[in-house]
Amino acid sequence: MEAVLDVVGIGNAIVDVIAQADDAFLARQGLTKGAMQLIDAARAEALYAAMGPTLEMSGGSAGNTLAGIASLGGKGAYIGKVREDELGRVFAHDMRAIGVHFDTAPLAEGPPTARSLILVTPDAQRTMNTFLGACVELGPEDVAPDLVAAARVTYLEGYLFDPPRAKAAFQKAAELAHAAGRKVSLTLSDAFCVGRYRAEFRALIEGHVDILFANEAEITALYQTSHFDEALAAVRGHCEIAALTRSERGSVVVTKDETHAVPAVRIDQLVDTTGAGDLYAAGFLYGLTHGSELAAAGRLGSLAAAEVIGHYGARPETSLRELAALAGLL
Amino acid sequence: MEAVLDVVGIGNAIVDVIAQADDAFLARQGLTKGAMQLIDAARAEALYAAMGPTLEMSGGSAGNTLAGIASLGGKGAYIGKVREDELGRVFAHDMRAIGVHFDTAPLAEGPPTARSLILVTPDAQRTMNTFLGACVELGPEDVAPDLVAAARVTYLEGYLFDPPRAKAAFQKAAELAHAAGRKVSLTLSDAFCVGRYRAEFRALIEGHVDILFANEAEITALYQTSHFDEALAAVRGHCEIAALTRSERGSVVVTKDETHAVPAVRIDQLVDTTGAGDLYAAGFLYGLTHGSELAAAGRLGSLAAAEVIGHYGARPETSLRELAALAGLL
Repeated sequence: MEAVLDVVGIGNAIVDVIAQADDAFLARQGLTKGAMQLIDAARAEALYAAMGPTLEMSGGSAGNTLAGIASLGGKGAYIGKVREDELGRVFAHDMRAIGVHFDTAPLAEGPPTARSLILVTPDAQRTMNTFLGACVELGPEDVAPDLVAAARVTYLEGYLFDPPRAKAAFQKAAELAHAAGRKVSLTLSDAFCVGRYRAEFRALIEGHVDILFANEAEITALYQTSHFDEALAAVRGHCEIAALTRSERGSVVVTKDETHAVPAVRIDQLVDTTGAGDLYAAGFLYGLTHGSELAAAGRLGSLAAAEVIGHYGARPETSLRELAALAGLL
Repeated sequence: MEAVLDVVGIGNAIVDVIAQADDAFLARQGLTKGAMQLIDAARAEALYAAMGPTLEMSGGSAGNTLAGIASLGGKGAYIGKVREDELGRVFAHDMRAIGVHFDTAPLAEGPPTARSLILVTPDAQRTMNTFLGACVELGPEDVAPDLVAAARVTYLEGYLFDPPRAKAAFQKAAELAHAAGRKVSLTLSDAFCVGRYRAEFRALIEGHVDILFANEAEITALYQTSHFDEALAAVRGHCEIAALTRSERGSVVVTKDETHAVPAVRIDQLVDTTGAGDLYAAGFLYGLTHGSELAAAGRLGSLAAAEVIGHYGARPETSLRELAALAGLL
């Protein structure tokens, strides 16, 4: 069957609640800068009350990636669980408004739509505190086989290992994708998340993942080394393609036989790094599903990441398609 | 009694729902660019469904002004009506998080918290579509006499003439303020709003308003002239101070005997003009309540307006106090 979608993403469907904070605030609240920490409803309420004024925007790692793919002109679908509440309607609206197919059945009752309380420090680092809410109900029954079969790439976020039933959804999607002759892609999401599920991630990567995304902290956490080069050597050959991001040092794309160093795109103003990895994946996957060479796909990833870190929020404010055309990448 | 607050603001308590749009979208939806149009719940739903992806942020004209005053280091309070719902909690959180006193009783039931669907076009103009929701229940019982008596300035938005009972709240606040020896300030809000209530606004200004804010379209609508200079001549002496803004041409501050031309602050990037007038008022009122001369107060207004039009959303992203200090204005 002809693939009619570029990417189907499966992830935690989250609305971001973004505030500025200083390092002293993180220290007072006992937060680990740069990490994603899971919190419960009571903690979410207490932290929200302590935070500065916020802006709300749809987020979620795979959700952001699909937003990036749509902004580049790609065709995508998203699978994730919200509840029928105000934030759930916002999340669904924002997906559909950018042309991403999204019809996962929302919860009629139970925990509310997930939110991540994100503190952005003056150094543009983001510290995320996620209340998973309705995401804990995502399960294999939500993985629509026709969507997975229709997409060139099934993209999974490592964060899916946190909610209890999503892992089964994850496995089902990977098997369906391969049965249909499609590719499976995984992002490791967060170094602490890698720490929680290291053995499972390694087994997955060796057995099921064709295209892996990780940043330096995540890939070194996966292989329990402090040396990027050792981690790179370890991952090479464990999956078809690994795209390893290194912030301002750009990224390295490796296959069994090839290594491509891709420079970062210089930006005028670094505001909020939330979504940088998600948007790199968006650019890379768009390139890959549209015939780009690996290095060119990496450059699209760098371009998309550069857009999103120049403003608050993890989804593009500017048409990535126009930016890519201006940069001669499309 | 010593004033312990700089400004108490009374306004429609609104959460902004902001999306990018092009002129063709405005035309298809029959919207008047640059204006604020009132819409009902059904229209709000239909327009939201047609809009692109959004970001949500607390707004409301006087609410934005109080946020600006707080960002400059001033002390403020806000009176406005939300409901006990998700957006109402967001609005209240954002006020309190910046240190603005806000304890107007929220509605336990009835219409939901107000929202304004704001379309921002590539020329940075904003077109607002406001569903007033809970704001229609704001009434004189919500005007706390102690707050009004405690504030150097009571600041009222012209938009308050739209919901049915707010006009009485407006009158009550103005009378209380003057009885306590305080100043009353009004912003005309919107040229179409001026058109709806021209006679009442004129009577108010002549009888009750000490400090008037208006942009060129509003002041010329008030005096039914197409010439700014004629409108300026008409308003001079009708209230103690009139601060008239003219976008990139800066502002003119007039009293019975004085005229001060204030330049606009040049900015690198014009993104979204939502809140420009609200933040001008914030800077001006902060200056005025802290001993600034009129021209210096106008420069603070220009500075605050310049910050807010450089990004999406109508409240400052950067500390206005730091910006003003850098500019040598504080």
